[in-house]
Amino acid sequence: MSDLPERRNESELIAHYFAPLSDAVAAFGLSDDTAFLSIPDKHDLVTTKDMLVADIHFFASDPPEKIAQKALRVNLSDLAAKGAMPFGYLLGLGLPKGWDEEWLARFCSGLKTDQNAFQFPLFGGDTVKSPERLTLSVTAFGLVPKGQKLLRKNAEPAQALYVTGTIGDGALGLQVALGKKLVGLDHKSNAFLHDRYLLPQPRLGYKDVIARYAVASMDISDGLLGDAAKMARAAGVNIELVQENVPLSEAARKALQADPSLWSTVLGGGDDYELLLTIAPENVSAFEKHCHESRLPVCNIGTVKEGEGISLISEKGERLDQEPTSFEHF
Amino acid sequence: MSDLPERRNESELIAHYFAPLSDAVAAFGLSDDTAFLSIPDKHDLVTTKDMLVADIHFFASDPPEKIAQKALRVNLSDLAAKGAMPFGYLLGLGLPKGWDEEWLARFCSGLKTDQNAFQFPLFGGDTVKSPERLTLSVTAFGLVPKGQKLLRKNAEPAQALYVTGTIGDGALGLQVALGKKLVGLDHKSNAFLHDRYLLPQPRLGYKDVIARYAVASMDISDGLLGDAAKMARAAGVNIELVQENVPLSEAARKALQADPSLWSTVLGGGDDYELLLTIAPENVSAFEKHCHESRLPVCNIGTVKEGEGISLISEKGERLDQEPTSFEHF
Repeated sequence: MSDLPERRNESELIAHYFAPLSDAVAAFGLSDDTAFLSIPDKHDLVTTKDMLVADIHFFASDPPEKIAQKALRVNLSDLAAKGAMPFGYLLGLGLPKGWDEEWLARFCSGLKTDQNAFQFPLFGGDTVKSPERLTLSVTAFGLVPKGQKLLRKNAEPAQALYVTGTIGDGALGLQVALGKKLVGLDHKSNAFLHDRYLLPQPRLGYKDVIARYAVASMDISDGLLGDAAKMARAAGVNIELVQENVPLSEAARKALQADPSLWSTVLGGGDDYELLLTIAPENVSAFEKHCHESRLPVCNIGTVKEGEGISLISEKGERLDQEPTSFEHF
Repeated sequence: MSDLPERRNESELIAHYFAPLSDAVAAFGLSDDTAFLSIPDKHDLVTTKDMLVADIHFFASDPPEKIAQKALRVNLSDLAAKGAMPFGYLLGLGLPKGWDEEWLARFCSGLKTDQNAFQFPLFGGDTVKSPERLTLSVTAFGLVPKGQKLLRKNAEPAQALYVTGTIGDGALGLQVALGKKLVGLDHKSNAFLHDRYLLPQPRLGYKDVIARYAVASMDISDGLLGDAAKMARAAGVNIELVQENVPLSEAARKALQADPSLWSTVLGGGDDYELLLTIAPENVSAFEKHCHESRLPVCNIGTVKEGEGISLISEKGERLDQEPTSFEHF
């Protein structure tokens, strides 16, 4: 656009857009290439990294604010799964040919919104050319008390399997984003699902309850069945899930009533960003009570067993045919 | 190729290629999405992130081992500049269409070589599709004693400016890689320069001496003049450099004798990965003595002054015309 200033070079971009987002203590106004992180006593640093590529993990045409928020939130979701407190992040930004300053200003405004919402400052990063596609690489940092390691591989037979929130909304919302009509859904339901796809809600509110009760924990980003299969593989166990017990939003329930073939999307599609937890049998009632009192929705959807892989069954115990599918990154 | 196995999916890639590279304590065989870093008492964590994109930061046709090593080394160079001890790294890997397992095996062998050479284990990462171009995002971690912050902005008037090693080899090596004939150079000199471009040498051996004597420090990745200008801007000072004092390899000296117009490449081109340091005047002789005794080449190339920007002068104090240039990432 002719009324935009000429595009800034890297140093000017950093000074104009990113320095105001940066952490005062760790990042020195981004005048350096490195950040210095002081970890509080008796804490460990949890770190995770998710890359997002245009038209693979989001649509290049999505609102820039939402792209920024999604990039932070998928990483915050990994921290939430470990019961971690958000600490800060590094941003790798690969800008495509033809980027413009208006886009970047809106992208940074999305970063700022979620930095404030989640107390999650920018520690540093790198900006490069990525000619064909916007490419984002976020490294997220969180803090946990030393020894708190809610690993997937901790799942053990007899533990109860829980999920937070509702499953399948993000995968159905992707269908909405792709322009597919979901039969039987009104405008409001479509908008709800689309929003669940665009803007994950990292389940950081569960921090205290999962730190206290969970044994194994992961976020569900690539589909419930595929992610449960990952937990089963990491732990060397079988995970049995009861299809009817999987919690659904009203919109997802309506969509499934109209078209039961969508079960494969609901259970196998990605973008839930809910948590998958195991709870030792002796803690199940205390865990449910605590969640209920704290208004944190959780749902018992299965059990950890001896064996391997996942088993999807009906309420009556019949084995269902559903093959585990999972979002494949390539 | 028909005799290759079908390509593995993401989980299989992680298990086959990356789990064997991962840190036993922090990464749990990469069975989780997160790593847990325990920071030793009285230390801070230094972190930095460099993205590298095919045919921008390296050639897609470079040997895969060298691409891997370069990705680690440009990050290790940032740690070296802070006098940090390498701790470990996260790898974001965007694989282009048509990648094959042979390429990936060689890439991982390069990672392994440098992980061993620098005691630098893999803590985790993410693997995604990046259809058009191989894209690498490395987040590197190092450890420094609490309070050791060799920031660019610490440069102050009257401090002496030093560089390690020799300047300009990487930028001349890029010319060799591009197939340009450098007049007056034999095969051995060409190969030396090309190798300096392909495989940076992170100056980690200077850790103790810079921790003890340096005030400001950064690595030179985007060209001596451009990077000195960044230090000047961060610190709000002028940096004066004497062209004849810039240390040169024999190959670079020959190339400059044959074609003095290459000075702009030597001083302005990127890929040096040497260190740029300031030393307080009262420590200059102790610093030089320590470096000499430890066989660590350093060279006094200028002085920090009041003012702003950089000034390139001759030995006789004449102001030279050289404009600061710098590798621009977009």
